[in-house]
Amino acid sequence: MRISELADASGVPLATVKYYLREKLLPEGERTSATQARYGDAHVRRLRLVRALLGPGGLSVARARGVLAALDVEHESVGEVLGVAQHAVTPAAPEGVDHTRARALVERWGWTVDPDDGPVLAALEVAVDGLEAAGFDLPAERLDGYARAMLDVAQAEIDGVPLESVDAAVQYVVLGTVLVEPLLLALRRLAQQDASWRRFGDLVGGAPAPTPPSPRPPVQDA
Amino acid sequence: MRISELADASGVPLATVKYYLREKLLPEGERTSATQARYGDAHVRRLRLVRALLGPGGLSVARARGVLAALDVEHESVGEVLGVAQHAVTPAAPEGVDHTRARALVERWGWTVDPDDGPVLAALEVAVDGLEAAGFDLPAERLDGYARAMLDVAQAEIDGVPLESVDAAVQYVVLGTVLVEPLLLALRRLAQQDASWRRFGDLVGGAPAPTPPSPRPPVQDA
Repeated sequence: MRISELADASGVPLATVKYYLREKLLPEGERTSATQARYGDAHVRRLRLVRALLGPGGLSVARARGVLAALDVEHESVGEVLGVAQHAVTPAAPEGVDHTRARALVERWGWTVDPDDGPVLAALEVAVDGLEAAGFDLPAERLDGYARAMLDVAQAEIDGVPLESVDAAVQYVVLGTVLVEPLLLALRRLAQQDASWRRFGDLVGGAPAPTPPSPRPPVQDA
Repeated sequence: MRISELADASGVPLATVKYYLREKLLPEGERTSATQARYGDAHVRRLRLVRALLGPGGLSVARARGVLAALDVEHESVGEVLGVAQHAVTPAAPEGVDHTRARALVERWGWTVDPDDGPVLAALEVAVDGLEAAGFDLPAERLDGYARAMLDVAQAEIDGVPLESVDAAVQYVVLGTVLVEPLLLALRRLAQQDASWRRFGDLVGGAPAPTPPSPRPPVQDA
């Protein structure tokens, strides 16, 4: 397809497509003349990925370029792709963070993680340290409960990795890592509102209660 | 206690304590002379809260001041405090976001949420829209699974609200909202590494596998 058709097919404005090309976020199409090139379905998928990384994913152009470059050269295994995606959205660890507690927790849960993965282990260490420094009492069983909940989530996500093509797996893992985080955080806040209403009978925001609390119906399967 | 003792008791450097006082993040102590004031345990707790909001919580001074001011005037119910804390960490909704899908989802799950809560509902709407625009196929049962996991998390959190004093409840809810998010995201990433290892037998980052995958042991209770 031509560049204008690529824009239509992906729903991305033509000017934005040209910008991505200039910024090397999108590979050139196959030249058909001095001024024209032909694009394929892979370009449509890449365009969606780029837009998601820069938009909801919140990555800078430089960071998105780094992610895409890393994905283009190394995608021999799902683990590799996951590593690239995770590092793209994990801020560099502050200096001087050791991983002693994070490693001990991961070991307690029997998880197998990348032993050289500084930033992700450091993120856990920093989070736990931050709670402690703030005087927040986080009992071990609560922390274990968080770990169980996130393992359930992760298990379903990894089981869902599409294996029919490397391209599809890359798209899934990168977007799933970057775009699902805001979804989970929004769900937690709304679930807290519901749990608070069930427990205390007062609506979040202090609005008057519409109906008395009743036992929670189970979340329905679709 | 004197201001130097307050610094020692809270582990916050004296210069930082003075800065918080100047910025009105920490209320003045009780004057005992023209140049001295006396501080109490409430100041120690407030100091820890301020430091957590500005540090791991990532709030600006202006935003932290807004949260603290809101907490100081209205804390008649846990729901109110939760609303203030959630709005502090939820970015303002982009203009023109309706909440049709978010409301429909919340209704499907039978959750009771603040019907006037634009930003938190909008965050869910934006997250779901972002996944769809990126061409990410999120089946309804997966979304329901995310909702169930977050409801488990929220339930334990709300059940843990300390009710012995308003001050303690405020501290817990605000810190729990602000500081637990990075913890959950770090846990999800590590859990994904473990799930990927169990499923595909390749370590994240592409390192050679240390031992063959074995059936996952259940996460231990503490």
